[in-house]
Formats: sequence, structure tokens, C-alpha cells
Amino acid sequence: MYHAPHSSTRPADRPSIVIVGAGFGGLAAARALKQANAQLTLIDRRNYHLFQPLLYQVATAALSPADIAWPVRALLSRQKNVRVAMGRVTGVDSVLRHVQLDDGRHIPYDYLVLATGARHAYFGRDDWSAHAPGLKKIDDATEIRRRVLTAFERAEQAECEELRAALMTFVVVGAGPTGVEMAGAIAELARRTLASDFRSIDPRKTRVLLVEAGGRVLPSFNERLSTKARGALERLGVEVRLGKPLTDCGDGFVAIGEERLAARTVIWAAGVMASPAAKWLGVEADRAGRIMVAPDLSVAGLSGVYAVGDTVIVTGADGRPVPGVAPAAKQMGRHVGRLIARRISGRGHTDEPFRYRDAGSMATIGRGAAVAEIHGLRLAGYPAWLLWAVAHVYFLIGARSRLAVAANWLWNYFTFERGARLITGSAKPMRLVSGAKEQVESEKITPR
Amino acid sequence: MYHAPHSSTRPADRPSIVIVGAGFGGLAAARALKQANAQLTLIDRRNYHLFQPLLYQVATAALSPADIAWPVRALLSRQKNVRVAMGRVTGVDSVLRHVQLDDGRHIPYDYLVLATGARHAYFGRDDWSAHAPGLKKIDDATEIRRRVLTAFERAEQAECEELRAALMTFVVVGAGPTGVEMAGAIAELARRTLASDFRSIDPRKTRVLLVEAGGRVLPSFNERLSTKARGALERLGVEVRLGKPLTDCGDGFVAIGEERLAARTVIWAAGVMASPAAKWLGVEADRAGRIMVAPDLSVAGLSGVYAVGDTVIVTGADGRPVPGVAPAAKQMGRHVGRLIARRISGRGHTDEPFRYRDAGSMATIGRGAAVAEIHGLRLAGYPAWLLWAVAHVYFLIGARSRLAVAANWLWNYFTFERGARLITGSAKPMRLVSGAKEQVESEKITPR
Repeated sequence: MYHAPHSSTRPADRPSIVIVGAGFGGLAAARALKQANAQLTLIDRRNYHLFQPLLYQVATAALSPADIAWPVRALLSRQKNVRVAMGRVTGVDSVLRHVQLDDGRHIPYDYLVLATGARHAYFGRDDWSAHAPGLKKIDDATEIRRRVLTAFERAEQAECEELRAALMTFVVVGAGPTGVEMAGAIAELARRTLASDFRSIDPRKTRVLLVEAGGRVLPSFNERLSTKARGALERLGVEVRLGKPLTDCGDGFVAIGEERLAARTVIWAAGVMASPAAKWLGVEADRAGRIMVAPDLSVAGLSGVYAVGDTVIVTGADGRPVPGVAPAAKQMGRHVGRLIARRISGRGHTDEPFRYRDAGSMATIGRGAAVAEIHGLRLAGYPAWLLWAVAHVYFLIGARSRLAVAANWLWNYFTFERGARLITGSAKPMRLVSGAKEQVESEKITPR
Repeated sequence: MYHAPHSSTRPADRPSIVIVGAGFGGLAAARALKQANAQLTLIDRRNYHLFQPLLYQVATAALSPADIAWPVRALLSRQKNVRVAMGRVTGVDSVLRHVQLDDGRHIPYDYLVLATGARHAYFGRDDWSAHAPGLKKIDDATEIRRRVLTAFERAEQAECEELRAALMTFVVVGAGPTGVEMAGAIAELARRTLASDFRSIDPRKTRVLLVEAGGRVLPSFNERLSTKARGALERLGVEVRLGKPLTDCGDGFVAIGEERLAARTVIWAAGVMASPAAKWLGVEADRAGRIMVAPDLSVAGLSGVYAVGDTVIVTGADGRPVPGVAPAAKQMGRHVGRLIARRISGRGHTDEPFRYRDAGSMATIGRGAAVAEIHGLRLAGYPAWLLWAVAHVYFLIGARSRLAVAANWLWNYFTFERGARLITGSAKPMRLVSGAKEQVESEKITPR
């Protein structure tokens, strides 16, 4: 039977497993421990599990948050060995073996799984974060939606031509899948959904710039697909700027290489940094803050501690680093869940290395335009887009979300409408950022 | 042809009609002016028209905001004589004949329609507003949803029994339709949707109190229906407290008459106050701040100025005041729109009195329980509930919302799930309110 190595503070009958993070990795770990004779605690700052690959569709008013997010508690309702706790982890004490929360609580563990993901990073330019929000959680998406829709509302009322142009210029930084999808979606929103809704401006004249320091869009894809994706973006009217980094960004402007451009809405999709999990543990991390875990995803030197998903870096069996994508996080979570289940039950290998199975990758540009790479098969255009749509509906959790998203997409497809064009939340963050300019603007705006 | 009475500042070709407020009244007025040879400007602080009768379902996690709100701009996209302007009106200059916005703009008018609605009022106890939020806009609904769902999350983690009880006690103040619907929905959320999702608490033990100073629930309905509604509420486990007003409300408590009760979540549905439209115009108002308009809904002494909906008080042809409900606002908006259209085209009566056609009223308590009063026909229970559901789906705008809401309701009905159980937004407003207590609480909460 089970022998708990460090259970001095609790009854020794069932080991305590603490999982931090209810994303793809954490949830998969919890589910893999379904049969385990253990007490699981799944901690997340938020009450929902989010299907991040579609978050850009919330930011561009196509889907509602509830279509792609589910209460963690409901997802694990029937798994009686799990407790879900909403809370913010601030540290780990690996000697006393407990997790610290910001409200002062300590949660003891025998096994710890850190699945805390990544956040956007500004490479030492944290001052850019107020001007160029990134996209990680629902509140980010509704904030970007608010900024994008508000920009058109204000452009409609602006009298000065320069201000109007700046309001109708959108800059997306970073041409990975998120950046490509955001740029394509904003272009479609402007050129199709909003096309005839304004009287003073023509939304079809909106400029969308996709800025990328590297030499091509979707650098993780095959070069031919990058070229196809770039072509599809340009057909949508997106200006693709390659080979030049964003050099500055501030109140109503961006600088791309040497060029300075007036733009009131900037969206950051250029890079991520791992969660502070490595710091909590006091272990070595790479430049992106990722824990360098052992091949079985355990953290060297700390017994019973594992880490999975975007917060780790690990080399696959093929000698290449496992990419920071949702399927990888899921597979890692499942792997660690199974390892721990075996350790608890005392059977089988308990240090089996993680093997990443690459199920392929896809990115969508817009209506009928996507690229996909699956086991050497390369698709672009309509077939890739259909595959993308079917796969994403399939990976959603539960019939309700699948129906809702599929119905929304069909609706958007045939009507060009977007169902969630709501400006909610407070405008204060935006005003704080651009206080001085705002003053100038209201003087410039006059009644017609 | 048209003769503009006060068009000194603009070309005299087309009169300028300004409508403030894109609720039921303002939107109906704009639509009734579809054929008018005029320049309409519809001003609203928000970019959406909201179907307020279902807002409580957003607050209780059954529907998403986008299911019951539509961008005003999209609704009027094809009506080319309308401009939609997002802006906050701060006053009206009825001498210079323009509307003032908070950004300094002035919008001149020949005809003005104020459809600015009502807000919740605390009868001189504005300090209650932080403790007992009301329900008028989408951000109110997501804030109430956040508070309700967070209360259960914190109850799950509370160790002290008293704190847990206070977190699981919900007080709804006011037993009009909104209060009844909120109380019933919270009871169902707790007893059905959340029933098996927690480990430390039993959500079925949640207390929901409905507090009403008057002698019965739904006082605008027939007395027999009030009794039925009360019975239905009590079967859902709602404690109905009649005949005693809320006498105090603060940090974690309420006082009902002499009784003091620990409750962490209070929702205000007890009363509304008209918008400041009467103040803007400098005209007489009743105690609730409503403009006492002439029988044709014009504002006495001010040429070309009308007001409609919840911001006015007017006596119907039957000698009774027209109630502050959505159908009345719609009818008033349409009436004023038609009057102005006639004045512009120079034909027909232009001071025809408004006649309210009472289409009946309904309120729902929960699953299979509602009351309805239609042209003397009184229904309760299942038939009333079906009628309520069909009517509300019918009154939504557009096939997309009708499908989405109907599908959501069917889903909820058969699964007891609620699709929008998301805690979004910042917790700061809540913490600010209960700062001191919060401190005490985190000391009380300990790990299990």
C-alpha cells in the first residue's frame, strides 16, 4: 500500500496531491488521477478553465466568454477525490512541503504539480504593457474588444483627419498563431462586419499592421505555409511588416524599426514568459523563466514535485524541445498524473520519460483561410480552414459549448455578423494611459 | 414642405432630431422616424441596446451578455438617416437648443427626445449602493454574478461556521418582478446547479431572503397571483419577509425591521429613480424625478422637446399612470417618433395624446413557475411559465439571439447546468467595501 513520504501534518491514510493551475496541463493531471486513492487539491486564481486557442475570437467579438470557458468546479464535480480551491499562489515551501496562498493559507502536499503556464512578456519593456495589452485571460479579451470597438466609435466622432487615421490603425505585434489570428480577425471585423455601420468613417479603410521581427509569419510552420498565410493576410488587407522589430510603443504611436507611426490600438502577441514557478521552487530556469525538468517531468532535487506545460522546457524523444502548445500541456499533465497514480499504488515505472506525440498544428487567418500541418501533410486555404473549425469544435468541452460555437460560426459565416460586439468594462485603464493626448482630442472633436 | 423653427446654426434643408438613450423608448422613436426626411442622432453612453427584462439571467449565470444585448449601430445600420453617437449627456440648453456631452461637444437639435430611463435609487441611503448593487446594465449583472459565485467559493474555504453562514446568505431587497426573479434564480442556482460541486459546503443549505416593505410580493399583480408567486418562491426555499423594510445594510449585515442578520451578498431591487432628464431641462418632476409630460408626451413650455419611458410620468386614457415597463416605453417612443414625423412632413395631428395599450404582465419565479395577467386572464404555474418563455424569446431582437436564448434555456432545463458561471472582473470594488472585515476573514480561514 501507499507510504506517504512526508505526511507529518496530516492523517497518513491518503496522500495529498496539490495541482496549481487549471489550464490544459493541470486539468489533465487531475483527470488522470481520477482513480487515485488520494486527496487532490486543484488551485487556480480563476474559477474557470479556458480554451485559450479561441480567446482571440472573444477579443474580436465573434464569441462570448462563456462559449470557451467552463467552471473548473463543474468540470470536476463528479470526481470526488478533488477539491477545487480559488486562490493565488505566492510561493512553495519545499522543505515544509506546502503551497502558500496570498491570503495567508498554507496547503500541504505530498505530491505537487505546477501547471502555471505563461504570461505575455515585454522583454524588459514592461512600460509597454499598458499600451499594448496581451491576450491570456478572459478579462484581457474583453479589454481588447473594448479598445478595438471603442476606437471605431471615437473615429466616427473625430473631426481631425489625423486623429481619425490613428484611431483606425491597429498594430498587432508578433506573427505567431495568435498574432496572425488577431490581425486577420480585426481586418475581417472592419471590412465585413462593421462595413456599413458608420456614417463618417469607412471601416473598410482600416489599417491593420502585423509586425514581426523575424523573417516570416508563423515561423513554427513549414516555409511554404508561411508564404501562403502571408498571402491570405494580405488579401484581407493586413500589412505584413517582416524583419523589423517593434522598437518603441507609447501614447498613440508605435515605432517599427526606424519608422514611427500613429496608432491608437496596439495588441501584443510577441512573446511569453513562464510563470514564476521556477522562482517559487528556487530551481534553475532558462531565459524564458521555464523550469528545466527531468525527462519524466519531475523537478530535480525536489521529491514529489513535477511541472508541466508552458512553464517548463523539456526535450522530447526526438531531441527537439517540446513546443508550448495546448496538446503538449495536456499530454504532460496526463503523463504526470499517471506517474503519481502509479507511485501511490506502488506499481509500475515511476520515472518513465515523457514522450510528446505531435498531433500537428494549425492556424487560421480568416474566413476560408487557414494553414495546417499534420504528420507531414500540409494544407492551406479552405480545406485547412474546415479542418481547423472541426478540430476546434471537437476540442471544446461538452456538447453545450460545441453547439454554441458551431452555431455562432455558422451564423457569422452566412451573415458576416459578430454576435458579441459589446463594449463593457471601464474605460479608465485606457484613459490613464493616454491622459495627456485625450485632452487634445476632445478639443479636436467637434459636432457635425 | 418642412419649416425648421430653430435651425439658425445648420443648413435648413433637414431638421435635426436628437434622441438620447438607446433603450426601448429611444430605439422605438428612431425606428418610427425611418422614413423621415431628417437627420437623426441617437446618443447613448453605451454601444448596446439591452433587453433588460432578462438581465437577471446574466446576473445568475444562465445567459451571456451577448445573448440579450445588441450593438445599437448594427440595429440601425440600414436606417441611413440615423447617426449613432456614443457619449454621455450632461445637460440640455433649451435656449440655444443643443445637447451637451461630457467631452465638451454640443449637438444641436430641432426636436429632442429624452429616453434616458431610470436608475436604482436608495431613498437617501446612497451609502448602501456599495453593499447592495442594483441591476441596470451589463456591468451590474456581471458584478452581481461575480459576487454571488465568489460567495460560494469563499464559503467553501471558510473554516468558521458563522462566516460560512454569512457567505451563504443572500438578501434580495424589493419584491417587484426583478426582486422575485433574482431571488428565485439564486435559489435555483444554489439548490440545483451548484448542488454537487462543492466539498465542504452544501449549497442546498443556502438561505435566500426576499425582503419587501409592502404587504405582498408582485404588488402590481392581482392579489391571488401574488399569493401563488409567494407559494412558488417558498417551495424553492426562498424566505419571503413581508411588511418590514430594510432598515440598514452594511459590511456583511442587513437589518430588516428590528432584526439584524449576517449576510455577505445583498442585491437591490427595491426602487428606481428617474434619470436626471428633468434637471437637464429645468422642468418640474415628481418625487421619483420623473418629468410630468403633457398627454402627447411633449414637455410643457419647451418647443420640440419630448420625453418617453421610465423618465416620465403620464396618465393614460383610463386615468391611471402608465406603468414603468418595457412595452410602455416602446409604445411611447413609437408615439413620439410618429408625432415628429408628422410635424416634419406637415400633415396630420401633431399633439395626439398617447394611449397605452396594456399587453399584460408576467413574472417568472423559476423552472415551471411564473405568473401572468393578460387582458383579465390570470395564469400561474407551468402554463404561465411557458407563455413567459415564449413571449420573452419572441421579444428578443433577431434570430441569432432567439436561437441562442431558446437553446440555452432548453439546455438549462434538461441538464440544470448554467452556461455562464464565470467570475470575471476585478474583486477590488468588493474589497474596498469590506476592507476591514476582509482582514478578519483571512485570519479565520485556515487550511483543512
